[in-house]
Amino acid sequence: MKRILTGIKPTGTPHIGNYFGAIKQAIELSKNEDYEALYFIADYHALNTVKNPELFKKYTHEIAATWLACGLDPEKVMFYKQSDIPEVFELNWILNNITPKGVLNRAHAYKACVEDNKNKNLDPDSGVNMGLYCYPVLMAADILLMQSNLVPVGLDQKQHLEITKEIARYFNNTFGNFFVSSEEYIPESVGTIIGLDGRKMSKSYGNTITLFGDEKMLRSQINKIVTNSQTPEEPKDTDCAIFKIFSLFATPKQIEEMKEKFSKGIGWGEVKKQTFEVANSLLAPMREVYNYYISHPEEIDKILENGAKKARQIAAQTIGEVRKLIGKE
Amino acid sequence: MKRILTGIKPTGTPHIGNYFGAIKQAIELSKNEDYEALYFIADYHALNTVKNPELFKKYTHEIAATWLACGLDPEKVMFYKQSDIPEVFELNWILNNITPKGVLNRAHAYKACVEDNKNKNLDPDSGVNMGLYCYPVLMAADILLMQSNLVPVGLDQKQHLEITKEIARYFNNTFGNFFVSSEEYIPESVGTIIGLDGRKMSKSYGNTITLFGDEKMLRSQINKIVTNSQTPEEPKDTDCAIFKIFSLFATPKQIEEMKEKFSKGIGWGEVKKQTFEVANSLLAPMREVYNYYISHPEEIDKILENGAKKARQIAAQTIGEVRKLIGKE
Repeated sequence: MKRILTGIKPTGTPHIGNYFGAIKQAIELSKNEDYEALYFIADYHALNTVKNPELFKKYTHEIAATWLACGLDPEKVMFYKQSDIPEVFELNWILNNITPKGVLNRAHAYKACVEDNKNKNLDPDSGVNMGLYCYPVLMAADILLMQSNLVPVGLDQKQHLEITKEIARYFNNTFGNFFVSSEEYIPESVGTIIGLDGRKMSKSYGNTITLFGDEKMLRSQINKIVTNSQTPEEPKDTDCAIFKIFSLFATPKQIEEMKEKFSKGIGWGEVKKQTFEVANSLLAPMREVYNYYISHPEEIDKILENGAKKARQIAAQTIGEVRKLIGKE
Repeated sequence: MKRILTGIKPTGTPHIGNYFGAIKQAIELSKNEDYEALYFIADYHALNTVKNPELFKKYTHEIAATWLACGLDPEKVMFYKQSDIPEVFELNWILNNITPKGVLNRAHAYKACVEDNKNKNLDPDSGVNMGLYCYPVLMAADILLMQSNLVPVGLDQKQHLEITKEIARYFNNTFGNFFVSSEEYIPESVGTIIGLDGRKMSKSYGNTITLFGDEKMLRSQINKIVTNSQTPEEPKDTDCAIFKIFSLFATPKQIEEMKEKFSKGIGWGEVKKQTFEVANSLLAPMREVYNYYISHPEEIDKILENGAKKARQIAAQTIGEVRKLIGKE
């Protein structure tokens, strides 16, 4: 059976843009019976930005609770933390020895930092740490250790997956054909998720709707969606933030009805009220699961430990073969 | 009790320059009752240059047999392979996240490659792989994982130890004071060991005497020591390769006697014969132990496995504390 691997970075509280833009499709994919699915929290990658032990723990629990609440079934999916798989870090070091430094020099994320530093007349490597620079090798280790056939990636990660394939080729050419080819899977685009101010929903714009805030927070955030000054009676254009956000949550029938109300005239307050209602009716049951896990972190830990146990069976097999190929065993 | 850590790189068959220049003192140091001694074979570091699985295995066995034959007592010293301590590679990744890339850019070994490439009008990183570039972080992980107080290093490794101390400070400043300060210990210089041609004994000059070659090889190599064309009767200068090599093996009394023979006149053939005799009488019992282990590699493996078991108790304690400090546990 083909294996599909998804990495999840635990940095900060998820918003509905994360859900509709990525999590929802990934959960659906995890239910595909044609694949053995491995979903892991890339916590030792996040260490690069999160240097506070309390936050580090909190983010891991929050992201795990989020995915569980969104429907990830830990009985079907191997759901684990990267840091629980020591074989990843051993393979990471082994791969270093067959990875030309030039490959890392070309990685987009690193190059962007260098460009930025040059524009500021700083040393090209100013503020760059080895976690950022070496990350593509760690990602290759994550993927290759599990002999992953399919790796869903966003467009921004496409180059990193190319690097993974390059590293696998170097290894196979040096020590014999062993690693399978890991192919990218770029999920069908759901289009941009619009934020409160009509721009792309993004933490950096401060225009997000928190995925699992409480009802009060959800209502208050929806009330902040920017609308125009039309009176309730005036017919309205559906090409606006509130209609788009409403449509994320509504059924096709509800969307049709709302379109009609827009053409006949409806008050923004009323639209916001109905948006809250459809949003809350989708999110409330998920929020309940989320809150349950957040108040039972030990259950999250147990789920992730069980996932790691299963994933380490694959890891042990791969690292065992790799050790033989390089001559360690 | 203070802890002393020594890394041993397994690359190629050792010669008497290695023995008199480094191994002998390190073995003596390992017998110092004031220290807990950890001696490890840096096999995953050697992977950077040894990409042949048969050679990789052979070099590890040869270097282990060499140190055992030279008197390393695995009951007193934790003698292990780096690759048997997975905690090293986890710590290596953790340390990446607090190590500025600039630190690695300044490392001598890397800078020498860059300089060499520039002189050849090549890309500065041509032929540099990530194993070479990232090595100082791995060395820091080797040292810090064992909370080593004292690290004997050659002058060429002094800078790497400075980098280790720098990385330890970054970690302590970020996550709280935890790593002890690892101090360098530069063993008293025994002076340069002279090779067959009077230059420094070095594999790259092809002027070495193999440490554990058989008697025939030893005799033949000693016979190749370059001498001048003086007749046996002429008095001779002791400032020559053969006298220096003789002196490595001889007792003070034997050295005095040889000095006298030099001043009175002695044939080079006779000097070579006596050099072989003192060399062989020191090396023969060690060679016997060496040959025993080489023909019983499974005993070497057992010794190294036992060493790893002991060393991993220290490793587990350190990595456990580190995981707590960063928030993983």
